[in-house]
Amino acid sequence: MYELHFAVPMAGAILCTLNSRLDAAMVSVLLEHSQAKILFVDYQLLEIAQEALNLLRERGTELPIIVLLTDSDCSSTIDITSMSYEYEKLVDVGHNDFNIVRPQSEWDPISVNYTSGTTSRPKGVVYSHRGAYLNSLATVLLFQMDLFPVYLWNVPLFHCNGWCLPWGVAAQFGTNICLRKVSPENIFDNIIQHKVTHMAGAPTVLNMIVNSALIYRKPLKHKVVVMTGGSPPPPQILSKMEEIGFSISHLYGLTETYGPGTFCAWRPEWDMLPPQERSKMKSRQGVPHVGLEEIDVKDPATMESVVADGKSVGEVMFRGNTVMSGYYRDLKATKEAFRDGWFHSGDLAVKHCDGYIEVKDRLKDVIVSGGENISSVEVETVLYSHPAVLEAAVVARPDDHWGETPCAFLKLKDGSDANAEEIITFCRERLPHYMAPKTIIFQEMPKTSTGKIQKYILREKAKALGSTSGPIDCEKYCS
Amino acid sequence: MYELHFAVPMAGAILCTLNSRLDAAMVSVLLEHSQAKILFVDYQLLEIAQEALNLLRERGTELPIIVLLTDSDCSSTIDITSMSYEYEKLVDVGHNDFNIVRPQSEWDPISVNYTSGTTSRPKGVVYSHRGAYLNSLATVLLFQMDLFPVYLWNVPLFHCNGWCLPWGVAAQFGTNICLRKVSPENIFDNIIQHKVTHMAGAPTVLNMIVNSALIYRKPLKHKVVVMTGGSPPPPQILSKMEEIGFSISHLYGLTETYGPGTFCAWRPEWDMLPPQERSKMKSRQGVPHVGLEEIDVKDPATMESVVADGKSVGEVMFRGNTVMSGYYRDLKATKEAFRDGWFHSGDLAVKHCDGYIEVKDRLKDVIVSGGENISSVEVETVLYSHPAVLEAAVVARPDDHWGETPCAFLKLKDGSDANAEEIITFCRERLPHYMAPKTIIFQEMPKTSTGKIQKYILREKAKALGSTSGPIDCEKYCS
Repeated sequence: MYELHFAVPMAGAILCTLNSRLDAAMVSVLLEHSQAKILFVDYQLLEIAQEALNLLRERGTELPIIVLLTDSDCSSTIDITSMSYEYEKLVDVGHNDFNIVRPQSEWDPISVNYTSGTTSRPKGVVYSHRGAYLNSLATVLLFQMDLFPVYLWNVPLFHCNGWCLPWGVAAQFGTNICLRKVSPENIFDNIIQHKVTHMAGAPTVLNMIVNSALIYRKPLKHKVVVMTGGSPPPPQILSKMEEIGFSISHLYGLTETYGPGTFCAWRPEWDMLPPQERSKMKSRQGVPHVGLEEIDVKDPATMESVVADGKSVGEVMFRGNTVMSGYYRDLKATKEAFRDGWFHSGDLAVKHCDGYIEVKDRLKDVIVSGGENISSVEVETVLYSHPAVLEAAVVARPDDHWGETPCAFLKLKDGSDANAEEIITFCRERLPHYMAPKTIIFQEMPKTSTGKIQKYILREKAKALGSTSGPIDCEKYCS
Repeated sequence: MYELHFAVPMAGAILCTLNSRLDAAMVSVLLEHSQAKILFVDYQLLEIAQEALNLLRERGTELPIIVLLTDSDCSSTIDITSMSYEYEKLVDVGHNDFNIVRPQSEWDPISVNYTSGTTSRPKGVVYSHRGAYLNSLATVLLFQMDLFPVYLWNVPLFHCNGWCLPWGVAAQFGTNICLRKVSPENIFDNIIQHKVTHMAGAPTVLNMIVNSALIYRKPLKHKVVVMTGGSPPPPQILSKMEEIGFSISHLYGLTETYGPGTFCAWRPEWDMLPPQERSKMKSRQGVPHVGLEEIDVKDPATMESVVADGKSVGEVMFRGNTVMSGYYRDLKATKEAFRDGWFHSGDLAVKHCDGYIEVKDRLKDVIVSGGENISSVEVETVLYSHPAVLEAAVVARPDDHWGETPCAFLKLKDGSDANAEEIITFCRERLPHYMAPKTIIFQEMPKTSTGKIQKYILREKAKALGSTSGPIDCEKYCS
């Protein structure tokens, strides 16, 4: 996939990286929608690909050519000889004096990235050569990536083209370390073995690291810069990562902003703050990077900027070179996203007096209870500070009286113990009463391949529970 | 000047920074050619400016408005009250809700930089907003400038807009340390006082540092990255800078390439080389930075690339976003510079097998002796390795028999002693006979304000000597 990030654009073609966790039905839908001509398939995913092709054949759709990618541990059950094309063989017959097919315009598309599925229907986000180039440079800069970095790929390349870092790492003459499986053991082993200087990961990946068994951890002998993003990181996770020895930075963006759009530029004077305050500062989404023209927090009705008081909530909006060209074959959604000349992120945030923004919630994750807006992120932050909680997600549950009430889904740490009543009391001591969850459900979290919790699944579950019947009715739902 | 690098473009105007060492006659020529509307003048240069305005008045040219810049040590002999405009007062009456006048196109000019005068007639090099933006980012990257750098301004802001670093330092939230006088004492004092992280300077500035009296030097307690460029740095100077403790990098470019165009990206494996080999590697001009599209070494007659063998000489040529838009009001010179679609640098170089280029000489500095090309840079490198030599410049002297012979101008170190015969013997032991200088002249070097030796003055002097009459006739010219 890394090599193809160069080969495909240099052949004048367009990249469309698919999530490796999709099922055959979704793969067939995206192959059809993207009108892909060639499908490069890792041997581990060959079955899904073939199933997807069968579905396309049934629908009478033209089939893409398949090129198989093998690996040293490739199973012998695959009959490679029966495949029309095998990647390494194609590379072998290639030649160095190949003519690069350059884009006619720098605005020509370089890739289509389907959104990851926290929303229901994936949309094809179109990146241009110009935007990808600028976002690569900006990401390298905000990552403080000097020459010859060693980059560990925890963030999948199918997620915003790996935040544009295939190109950024190459621009800095870097080394790429790829993992088949993201696990604390693999991460620590590779950091030590390859002297990794930079890596990235969603807050859930960091959570996995800070809660990993001590036997997997290895002392860090050199500086490892970790960029986190994808969802608001709980301050507790940031401070625990720093205790282990990682140098943590925080960025924020969406597939539509080529991945990183803002970053929490760290001010030297914050070094003096007590650890808790430092982590709070670091959990803010910050300021736009140098590749982006403008970012603002606006009232979507009036398009007025909110007051920079750390309290007034508005929608985060972007414009600039590193905002997508549009949604592929979806003019309606494109127009909707760009109404009034700004890209509407769907994220709610405040602007602080120093200009740094702080995301409070996804627009559709806000819980409206008794006319009050409750930020699910704020409630989750309190839940993460409970010693027994490993993962937390708060969504709205319908309520006949209040409209909605907060419903918390929790996964406890191995060997930890806590009941719903305790958790609710813990929240009430730290939050206004109306913000504390009324329902607590203990379960495994449904997640996207990039480690984001799929709140829409939890929302459906909370909805199915029906109206909150009393102040604490959660015990019966605990598994 | 730093503030004006933001204020002028934000007012929709175009910057034109003039060299502070120009005389009134040249200032009047450039004011007329540039059609400047407002002239910001530092109090130290007020007399020259007023004299230049008198010259314009005599020629019946429209006069620019003068705005005086004062300083804390501003002499009381200047009657500030008589000035129409004073910078600080103008700033005082400014307001924060000023509307930025954005460029209509990103290709609109942001500045005109007159070439520094190693050539006879200055040409006005036009930079675009787009090029300046990209070169700022590229320069920050090749400078390995992390967030919050402290930058010491040895390179004047009137030289390629300070290599685009006014904008680059701001993009990285940096601190700027400005000097009224570049001297070893000032440089070391400021490094210690302000914890300077980055500075730059022509090889002559580095030469001044490595040859400075020990009482001015202070031990460096933190990493100071130094970028050098402007002329090929003798390897000896690079290794001495590293002995003092500076972390040295080498870049190459011209006013026409917004300053930095290539840099000698340092490969980790070169750390193992012996010091002399390291410095030789570091003195190569290297590879293009990420803001530039392409660089090549070509035969200007056929436009064929030279073989990458470290021997075949061609002209360095550039194309890309960070190459000038053209020469202001000089279509003929613009067409000449861009013939065959590439910017012709006028520099001769070889390409090594690893793709790194090495500049051998300015096209017009090559000495042709008995049909052999002699690189003045190669002869100078040998001269710099002589323990008594402080500065060296080699030019062609006419010769009835050989066509031309190498003529060396030398300045010796304080307290050092060497005669011409010794120097020539020293060169003959290290170079083919025909490359060793036949003439040695001891004198002060004529220099541009950016510290470049003005070879055209030396060439005229060598020409005036007439034909070389014998193998060693230099003694009589020694001062």
